[in-house]
Amino acid sequence: ITEDSPSPSKWVYDVWEFARQDRNRVTFALKVGLACVLVSLLILFRAPYDIFGTNIIWSILTVAIMFEYTVGATFNRGFNRALGSVLAGVFAIVVIEVAMFSSPSAEPYIIGFSIFLVGAVTSFMKLWPSLVPYEYCFRVILFTHCLIIVSGYRMGNPIRTAMDRLYSIAIGGLVTVLVNVFICPIWAGEQLHNELVNSFNCLADSLEECVKKYLSNDDSEHPDFSKTLMDNFPDEPAFRKSQAILNSSAILDSLANSAKWEPPHGRFNHFFYPWAEYVKVGNVLRHCAYEVMALHGCLHSEIQAPYTLRGAFQSEILDVTNQAAELLHSLAKDVNNMKWNLQTSQLKHVHVSTERLQHSIDLHSYLFMAIHEDNSAKAQLKTNRVASFNIKDFTKQSNITGKTTTPSEVLTQAESYHEVMKRQQRRLHSWPSMEVVDCEDGRNVVSDMIPMMRALESTSALSLATFTSLLIEFVARLDRLVEAVEKLSKMARFKQQITN
Amino acid sequence: ITEDSPSPSKWVYDVWEFARQDRNRVTFALKVGLACVLVSLLILFRAPYDIFGTNIIWSILTVAIMFEYTVGATFNRGFNRALGSVLAGVFAIVVIEVAMFSSPSAEPYIIGFSIFLVGAVTSFMKLWPSLVPYEYCFRVILFTHCLIIVSGYRMGNPIRTAMDRLYSIAIGGLVTVLVNVFICPIWAGEQLHNELVNSFNCLADSLEECVKKYLSNDDSEHPDFSKTLMDNFPDEPAFRKSQAILNSSAILDSLANSAKWEPPHGRFNHFFYPWAEYVKVGNVLRHCAYEVMALHGCLHSEIQAPYTLRGAFQSEILDVTNQAAELLHSLAKDVNNMKWNLQTSQLKHVHVSTERLQHSIDLHSYLFMAIHEDNSAKAQLKTNRVASFNIKDFTKQSNITGKTTTPSEVLTQAESYHEVMKRQQRRLHSWPSMEVVDCEDGRNVVSDMIPMMRALESTSALSLATFTSLLIEFVARLDRLVEAVEKLSKMARFKQQITN
Repeated sequence: ITEDSPSPSKWVYDVWEFARQDRNRVTFALKVGLACVLVSLLILFRAPYDIFGTNIIWSILTVAIMFEYTVGATFNRGFNRALGSVLAGVFAIVVIEVAMFSSPSAEPYIIGFSIFLVGAVTSFMKLWPSLVPYEYCFRVILFTHCLIIVSGYRMGNPIRTAMDRLYSIAIGGLVTVLVNVFICPIWAGEQLHNELVNSFNCLADSLEECVKKYLSNDDSEHPDFSKTLMDNFPDEPAFRKSQAILNSSAILDSLANSAKWEPPHGRFNHFFYPWAEYVKVGNVLRHCAYEVMALHGCLHSEIQAPYTLRGAFQSEILDVTNQAAELLHSLAKDVNNMKWNLQTSQLKHVHVSTERLQHSIDLHSYLFMAIHEDNSAKAQLKTNRVASFNIKDFTKQSNITGKTTTPSEVLTQAESYHEVMKRQQRRLHSWPSMEVVDCEDGRNVVSDMIPMMRALESTSALSLATFTSLLIEFVARLDRLVEAVEKLSKMARFKQQITN
Repeated sequence: ITEDSPSPSKWVYDVWEFARQDRNRVTFALKVGLACVLVSLLILFRAPYDIFGTNIIWSILTVAIMFEYTVGATFNRGFNRALGSVLAGVFAIVVIEVAMFSSPSAEPYIIGFSIFLVGAVTSFMKLWPSLVPYEYCFRVILFTHCLIIVSGYRMGNPIRTAMDRLYSIAIGGLVTVLVNVFICPIWAGEQLHNELVNSFNCLADSLEECVKKYLSNDDSEHPDFSKTLMDNFPDEPAFRKSQAILNSSAILDSLANSAKWEPPHGRFNHFFYPWAEYVKVGNVLRHCAYEVMALHGCLHSEIQAPYTLRGAFQSEILDVTNQAAELLHSLAKDVNNMKWNLQTSQLKHVHVSTERLQHSIDLHSYLFMAIHEDNSAKAQLKTNRVASFNIKDFTKQSNITGKTTTPSEVLTQAESYHEVMKRQQRRLHSWPSMEVVDCEDGRNVVSDMIPMMRALESTSALSLATFTSLLIEFVARLDRLVEAVEKLSKMARFKQQITN
């Protein structure tokens, strides 16, 4: 009934769906609540409050700031906080000692200058590229230093204040770590592992989606390269996911960075697990994803090959795509199960089908030259189609029996070949009458004053060549991917199985 | 003398260079120091301390947490903090009122439950995708609520505590904002503007670099597609910069998000300045950058066209590249100067040179079919080269005089054409003896068990077709870019100048 306006029931349903998609979200929320309550108990009960006094509120602050989604990130943040606190404490004590030995009138100046110095130096250092991950540490140094030194100056006994605060921060940190690790822990390593497996599947899906869409002659003849919604193709769910792969480098890096802090756990049961290798596989995968992006660019490019022409290599392209997607899926499965079947036979299948595609292009490359001036183009294509099919059978035969030639097929090829040559000839002579001439006289300035580029039809035929050669390049990069996964499997001690 | 080991002098030099590259870094550091000192004065002097008491340390915390690099980001963070504090304060007061009306024994349970609820709900909400930018606000809500409610419970007079703390936070916030805005302000809008202009120039540079490298026949014949350093080509400085464009979406978004908070300033002197439009231009630019990435992928792909073949369209490709780069540079200049010269003539030049490239490909598309079996291939190419040059002159002539044909040139073309046809013929008959056959018998399994894909040479010739058609597609996308910049120029009220 309600279509666009957000109704309460719709809203509740959305939240429910969001929680259901990933149970960890609920777990995380409940764990934060629990940690906060645990730490509040320290104040709600009288005994701990009598010992620590008002400084106990620092425990709460610590929980609120330190509790992160994954175990590794929490450790990392805790490390930053601890290091920052210790460094700030040491420096503050040094400054206080210096101030105490100087004359009382100089004391405020020394303190003021030290605050200025710490503020300026930490702010400068956190801009340094290699120190950016420790940004939080510098923030902690700054405010801890200020707090210790200033409250020490006003309230006396700065070291006692600092120590009390340190205890309560340590309590907060301990509660955070205990709750985070022992109650339904969310491991960054597990997330990284799943993220990588997921990327493999996404890439396979979006490759298949892209190729399928390229070959299907749907209603919308014109590319829906909308100006405003550039990055948003609602009918291509897999594409959006594979776009996520392009931007996944930051996510993988931060997860690997967190995972390094985690003790061995679950399936990842040895020390020095090669998390960095996951990032490397992710990089190779991203390089493959660039090719899929380029394929997708072809699909939505301004210059398009006619659909009839696209059909010419349909079966070969589909074959390559299916084989490549299958390889990706089986790699994903292997990584997921932490096994390693050397994919020789599958990789060989991909190569064979790619080489068939190459041969087919090789043989029919005249298609990229001229197709449009002929009304019989479609009929022509059908002939080629038949020839192409025969050639495939032929290849299979020759695989079995060696070099047998079927004269009738060679004849078919030769015929269509000569027809093309004739068309070529005609084309060559009709050439100078074309568009460059009337481009210069200004007639192509469109109404809104911005001239649009026009593509020659032969260039649009070449767009198919681009598509196929990007696909072939994609397959070529799969070799690297298999290598990278193999290296990962060795370093992470996957179960080795050579089935083929 | 010292090459790799970091010596102190080298280190000082690095820091100096880092500071010199962008003076704002030093400014920022000094400003943070200053703000910290100003806020410490409140405690170092006796008068304000007597009024606010120990709560004054919250001012310091606020400065340390709220001080961000740009004005907009500081406002944004301040808004988050203020909103979070107010929401937490309201909720805390409600809980306290409820607890006061209930029986004293129930009070701790109510307080404990409210802490749990706030912890769980804020943690869950900050995972919600559209609320991620307000992550800090939720963190503030959580710890402010806990602090107010717990310290109120223990120390009595919670509202008084809350108000005192609010005052000191407000003082800290005020100092932060004043220092940040009035002393050498670093505007996010300015940064966004420069970032965009810089992206235009980077893209132009990396396009030129990539094409130049593709056409130059350097020593390293094999592509340096190193397995480990995938994303790292040390000899291509512009490429790395253009890679930054791919990942710039997050930076532009966050800068635009910050810039929205800034009052009109400097050159951006009207309200509701269209910062969102900068992000849109950035998106279109990124779409162009994908093509450059694909071009770069060609440059480093596994399947390569021979360098001799690449030379065939050298002048046309270089022409297109130079025109496109010039267009990009002039767009950058226009945006930078906040002027808008409609780039009709320049865009037309790009189109004309692109159409020449298309024609040249059209005419020489037989090159993509077969070139390799001939020893005379190089000589052949030279003939083509000459023909191509003539054709260009010819095109120019035809632009001037209309449709004049030069028979000798047509002859040259026809000759080379027939030679190619002969080669084609030979190729066609030698076809079945090729690689698919011996692929199946397993000989292509290399030593480390992972079979490598081999490319047919005709496919490698098609790699040049891919390169050129990607270049053409890049130019086609430039139209969109000009449109986007025009829209920006209108919305941001650039000075309109129609020179052409």
